[in-house]
Amino acid sequence: MAIVLSDNQYGKAETRLVRIYRDTQRHEIRDLCVSTALRGDFVAAHLTGDQANVLPTDSQKNTCFAYAKERGVGEIEDYALALAEHFVTDIAPVTRAHVDVEEYRWDRVPVAGTGHAHTFVRAGHEVRTASVTTVAEGAVEKLSWVISGLRDLVVLKSTGSAFTGFLKDRYTTLAEAADRILATSLTARWRYAGTGIAWGEAFGQVRRILLERFAEVESNALQQTLWEMGSSVLAARDDIAEIRLSAPNKHHFLVDLAAFGLDNPGEVFHADDRPYGLIQCAVRRDGGPDAGPAWDSPASFA
Amino acid sequence: MAIVLSDNQYGKAETRLVRIYRDTQRHEIRDLCVSTALRGDFVAAHLTGDQANVLPTDSQKNTCFAYAKERGVGEIEDYALALAEHFVTDIAPVTRAHVDVEEYRWDRVPVAGTGHAHTFVRAGHEVRTASVTTVAEGAVEKLSWVISGLRDLVVLKSTGSAFTGFLKDRYTTLAEAADRILATSLTARWRYAGTGIAWGEAFGQVRRILLERFAEVESNALQQTLWEMGSSVLAARDDIAEIRLSAPNKHHFLVDLAAFGLDNPGEVFHADDRPYGLIQCAVRRDGGPDAGPAWDSPASFA
Amino acid sequence: MAIVLSDNQYGKAETRLVRIYRDTQRHEIRDLCVSTALRGDFVAAHLTGDQANVLPTDSQKNTCFAYAKERGVGEIEDYALALAEHFVTDIAPVTRAHVDVEEYRWDRVPVAGTGHAHTFVRAGHEVRTASVTTVAEGAVEKLSWVISGLRDLVVLKSTGSAFTGFLKDRYTTLAEAADRILATSLTARWRYAGTGIAWGEAFGQVRRILLERFAEVESNALQQTLWEMGSSVLAARDDIAEIRLSAPNKHHFLVDLAAFGLDNPGEVFHADDRPYGLIQCAVRRDGGPDAGPAWDSPASFA
Amino acid sequence: MAIVLSDNQYGKAETRLVRIYRDTQRHEIRDLCVSTALRGDFVAAHLTGDQANVLPTDSQKNTCFAYAKERGVGEIEDYALALAEHFVTDIAPVTRAHVDVEEYRWDRVPVAGTGHAHTFVRAGHEVRTASVTTVAEGAVEKLSWVISGLRDLVVLKSTGSAFTGFLKDRYTTLAEAADRILATSLTARWRYAGTGIAWGEAFGQVRRILLERFAEVESNALQQTLWEMGSSVLAARDDIAEIRLSAPNKHHFLVDLAAFGLDNPGEVFHADDRPYGLIQCAVRRDGGPDAGPAWDSPASFA
Repeated sequence: MAIVLSDNQYGKAETRLVRIYRDTQRHEIRDLCVSTALRGDFVAAHLTGDQANVLPTDSQKNTCFAYAKERGVGEIEDYALALAEHFVTDIAPVTRAHVDVEEYRWDRVPVAGTGHAHTFVRAGHEVRTASVTTVAEGAVEKLSWVISGLRDLVVLKSTGSAFTGFLKDRYTTLAEAADRILATSLTARWRYAGTGIAWGEAFGQVRRILLERFAEVESNALQQTLWEMGSSVLAARDDIAEIRLSAPNKHHFLVDLAAFGLDNPGEVFHADDRPYGLIQCAVRRDGGPDAGPAWDSPASFA
Repeated sequence: MAIVLSDNQYGKAETRLVRIYRDTQRHEIRDLCVSTALRGDFVAAHLTGDQANVLPTDSQKNTCFAYAKERGVGEIEDYALALAEHFVTDIAPVTRAHVDVEEYRWDRVPVAGTGHAHTFVRAGHEVRTASVTTVAEGAVEKLSWVISGLRDLVVLKSTGSAFTGFLKDRYTTLAEAADRILATSLTARWRYAGTGIAWGEAFGQVRRILLERFAEVESNALQQTLWEMGSSVLAARDDIAEIRLSAPNKHHFLVDLAAFGLDNPGEVFHADDRPYGLIQCAVRRDGGPDAGPAWDSPASFA
Repeated sequence: MAIVLSDNQYGKAETRLVRIYRDTQRHEIRDLCVSTALRGDFVAAHLTGDQANVLPTDSQKNTCFAYAKERGVGEIEDYALALAEHFVTDIAPVTRAHVDVEEYRWDRVPVAGTGHAHTFVRAGHEVRTASVTTVAEGAVEKLSWVISGLRDLVVLKSTGSAFTGFLKDRYTTLAEAADRILATSLTARWRYAGTGIAWGEAFGQVRRILLERFAEVESNALQQTLWEMGSSVLAARDDIAEIRLSAPNKHHFLVDLAAFGLDNPGEVFHADDRPYGLIQCAVRRDGGPDAGPAWDSPASFA
Repeated sequence: MAIVLSDNQYGKAETRLVRIYRDTQRHEIRDLCVSTALRGDFVAAHLTGDQANVLPTDSQKNTCFAYAKERGVGEIEDYALALAEHFVTDIAPVTRAHVDVEEYRWDRVPVAGTGHAHTFVRAGHEVRTASVTTVAEGAVEKLSWVISGLRDLVVLKSTGSAFTGFLKDRYTTLAEAADRILATSLTARWRYAGTGIAWGEAFGQVRRILLERFAEVESNALQQTLWEMGSSVLAARDDIAEIRLSAPNKHHFLVDLAAFGLDNPGEVFHADDRPYGLIQCAVRRDGGPDAGPAWDSPASFA
């Protein structure tokens, strides 16, 4: 049985790009981390070291910078689409491009009524993400998939969460809990059914729904909360085909203070780092468009 | 020349403590990382392994938890003072206690007018800190020093910063810059002249001054900006004896786009990780009270 | 179109387990990080919060500890197989189990000829990994897939690497390099065609081949080096069906010292953190057994 | 009371420098992270923004690179001395220079008998460090202090460690342990009485003593072990004036397996991340030379 080259891709990861808009006195800032990955006709590059088809990762980085100047950043989904379409259109050997963008949010320093004109402070903990995959093989028309998302959205509820009635086996020692802390650092990614969407508005709406459902669901388990979050997002927006949620259960253990003559009715907790539960689920619209290679990425490669 | 035991201390580092206040339907959350370090008569522990004077670090951790229940957290400066005074008062061999507290801020999930009653989202990037040192040797009365601070306050100004007229030597290639990005991840720590202060209010005021001065100073160098920030804090509050500022100069390099036929008048930057400038300065009130061991800590030990 | 629950899994991540063998005076140490993920009939857990089918992640953690005592660790592949088979066999609702194990290596402190009997020093930078997936649906017999691997194997060659003849586009400014530093932090994972293999011996052989090929291939690009590494592994071992390699190109930039009157013929480099090239490829045996769900994992979920 | 500028310093932190020696076919590699910090007459830089006395941190970085070419790296202590003396000698406003160097060790890829000529694999976990402070104020002759060290030396003993007879207070629940795991990630730094020492040989000897004493001392507490390690180093080398040891007590908790019908006589442990004990001590030679500003550094500034 012959040994053959299978899936392969390459690109430039984690280009840290800051774009300042200074057309007026009141500047704007966009702060990104951009990663590109290309697939295509790269067999010779592997088998014989012939680089004739290989656009350097350095050129990919330059393209990210040049596009940020020429077309601007705009919504990160559109910026990623422009880059991905450029690579499959203009670089002959490329048949698939994957572009990941992370965005870090800044607020204005609150000095005047509406904030300082050109001084900013890093906001929040969480990161907004976009992943675009564009494919163009042979005579086939270009196809693009857009996944938007967020990560490191750290949320906690101090009541309204239980964990009871679970399966018990020989190794089960966990006590049932009628009232516990539920905390997670949420990663959510949702795949749109198409393009041409008001990405920023959609992002805001999804984020709002995720937070509200996390807050309002009386939770019997993180699984239930995730389902409620995910299905509510799909119920609210027809243009989202699927959402994936990955939620570490960040354990907060009630500290036993009895030895010191103290009770502890849900007041003092030890926040543990590891291990953590990891709960993951996808919610999709039955009969929605196919995901194609949308979820493939350098991060899922190996 | 004899070999002797010199400075030594021990304690429990990074106890992750979450305190929920649930006396009403509207919960409150306090999220801390607490570290303790004790000095005292521990020579035998080192030289002969005799632990009779050694309060276990596990007991120190328990104390942090118990105090969070018994007296509550309140302002982290008061919580740290209570712990430090407890150790030097109640644990006979201890002559000096150092307690470091970090606090992570949470906002309410914005579901109703005033936010959700018991669901929170991690806020901001920055961390509020307090370091208390309490000493009680022999018949001497107890003395305490309080340092408040913040770290990871990431700020950036997109104009209003220059770096010109600097010293040039054989190894200087840097071009002068009349207009550049100035960005840092600020660590600031200020030592109070006494105790009994409205810590939270003071923290808010200092943070506000630091942000405002960073924004408003037309900067000829990060040194000048730090001085303006620090001296403004001392000018505003007589009860602060000293402030120390440590500011990595997070370099943002203007990308050369000329090869692509593009100009780049301060619009597209590469944010670099390393190396970074590191600018540090202390500003103090002449004739203010002595710092004593206030700045000593496990972090500065080795 | 109905909104439906799609892929979902849950488990306990990053249980840090240390197993000491102390049957003789000469102890042995095994240091692991274990993660479990279960799939199966968990629809009710999501849709109604009914946990009757949900074995707590805490029980999964307990199982990892108990198995380390009862059956010992042995080769991490066998340990992961035992755990995965237990979950699909003994926990009724579970139809698929995924177990990831990382192992950290320790050397004996070199005090006597053969090292100290019970004192160890953490060795190396790299981590050995194993990922086992076991499936048992309906009346079907259990099937298991084993992937072994390593990560953070940091290697560098100071010559014997070029990058020339590459594709140039409008955004290409990179100069061709006839002789450059090639450095990476390798992640390699290889899927076996079956089980019942001498895992430790196989691991050693694969690691040796990877290192030797990295060293000996005159590289025209990292792609070529990866292909040579991967195909050599498959050529050497019939029982490996596929290998995936993920290699960040850790850039080392030659420092321009001309301004100081110094030449720099490949001697002084700046090692940059970000961005980095990311080169990934899979090499497989044509007609080998199907990968099934072997590459699915919590890490690739979202 | 006037507000005045107090301690201040600035420099370039974490310049990642790789030096290849390629004078013969058999290359050598040195992999460093270099940080510089300068003190001197920088009042105007702070108070008025006048940079006439300020050598850019960029020039300091260039100097690190140029020196690596011109004089080579050699022992990192000598390299740091050369840099520090250059700054105080050749840059007029500078009266004190502090240079920190970290070194990452590489082994040759073991392909031939003596290893590959130009391919290397990152070795070990630990880092070798050097900190040099050079002072030259007014007409005073230059004075230099050299501190060598290591960090992240992770060691563990699976027996030969107890913790009993300790002080118990109201908050003590810890059980005495006659036999436990003792593990730490050691930071050790030792100050030499002078310069002109065979640094590499001394480093090897100190590291060997630290490991041997950690292994051989029957430990009643980490304090005792540290004292034995530190005092043995000073006993072995007259040219070392002081050593400081900082040792997190990395807790390994015996897992309670009784619920599963299993005993656990020191075999299965949970390695916890936080909190950890932190034990620190200094051992010095009575009457040895003064430390001066040797221990001051950017890391201890704030």
